[in-house]
Amino acid sequence: MDKLELQHLEPKEKVGLIVVLTGNGKGKTTSAMGMALRAVGHGLKVCVIEFMKGDMYAGEIDGFKRLAPDVEFNMMGKGFCGIQGNPYPFEEHRANAQEAISLAREKLVSGQFDLVVLDEINNALRLGLLDLPQVLELIDSKPPLLHLILTGRDAHPEVMNRAHTVTEMKEIKHAYRQKIEPQKGVDY
Amino acid sequence: MDKLELQHLEPKEKVGLIVVLTGNGKGKTTSAMGMALRAVGHGLKVCVIEFMKGDMYAGEIDGFKRLAPDVEFNMMGKGFCGIQGNPYPFEEHRANAQEAISLAREKLVSGQFDLVVLDEINNALRLGLLDLPQVLELIDSKPPLLHLILTGRDAHPEVMNRAHTVTEMKEIKHAYRQKIEPQKGVDY
Repeated sequence: MDKLELQHLEPKEKVGLIVVLTGNGKGKTTSAMGMALRAVGHGLKVCVIEFMKGDMYAGEIDGFKRLAPDVEFNMMGKGFCGIQGNPYPFEEHRANAQEAISLAREKLVSGQFDLVVLDEINNALRLGLLDLPQVLELIDSKPPLLHLILTGRDAHPEVMNRAHTVTEMKEIKHAYRQKIEPQKGVDY
Repeated sequence: MDKLELQHLEPKEKVGLIVVLTGNGKGKTTSAMGMALRAVGHGLKVCVIEFMKGDMYAGEIDGFKRLAPDVEFNMMGKGFCGIQGNPYPFEEHRANAQEAISLAREKLVSGQFDLVVLDEINNALRLGLLDLPQVLELIDSKPPLLHLILTGRDAHPEVMNRAHTVTEMKEIKHAYRQKIEPQKGVDY
């Protein structure tokens, strides 16, 4: 079959989007990662900051290395606060999240990035590792053309209010409910 | 703050997952792309087949090149069938989708891939570019350890029945409803 020529869209008005990916289903972090991949394809520079993971190896660690130096990947967390088996006290998780939001502030206004992913920030806020005014201030400090993606369950309504695009990833089914362990490449 | 040592999960039982990403919200294709990135990080081999896009440039075209040869990216469509401005008749879209599903069959059993993404296949089925028995047969031909991801709105109930994990990406808000044009790196 003949190959068709690709059309190149060019938005008349560039807008730095605020995108919130929330809900209890699979796909929030991976969707943010997919946007990072897409952005790199356009020659954009991406910064990813993880607020809550960082205690387990995940494929994106080496995946993002393949996209360096166009993607800068910062793992700031020590796993999930309050999850069984996580050995760190609340204070330590909060200190980590506070460090992560400081880094986010810095990266957001650095002029070095076109797209910034704040992975699991919604969760960090819900758990009290961050305070709402901090997160809202951060969003409000976004340069107009920078795209900002915020992921994690239970996004705060005021965070969603500020977003252009919000998706609720709703679990219809999940492998772990069928007692299937997390699998490489899909779940981590 | 001290860096913690990463733990490496290893599932006792490996399972090739079937994941369906559906719904009307943003995040289906990007989530599949994120899993591709994650899989590459684990040293897995990925094949992506697009059933319905392929008429417009999107960042993933060059993004996936960065992951080659670990990701093979096949654009098989001629845009969205029935969408205003798309010049191709139904028959041509159907012929393209039929070619795409033949390719998918081949790739699935080739032994060359650990993860296969069938992007927009749900849509192609809903529009009659594919037939239900074809899609179910394809899913049933999956080698046990291969991960298969099927994306697109309006996933067929029988497709969802066969999946381990199903997420409905539900639109809470979308930038285009605020008359914001699609933006590079986020929307395409």
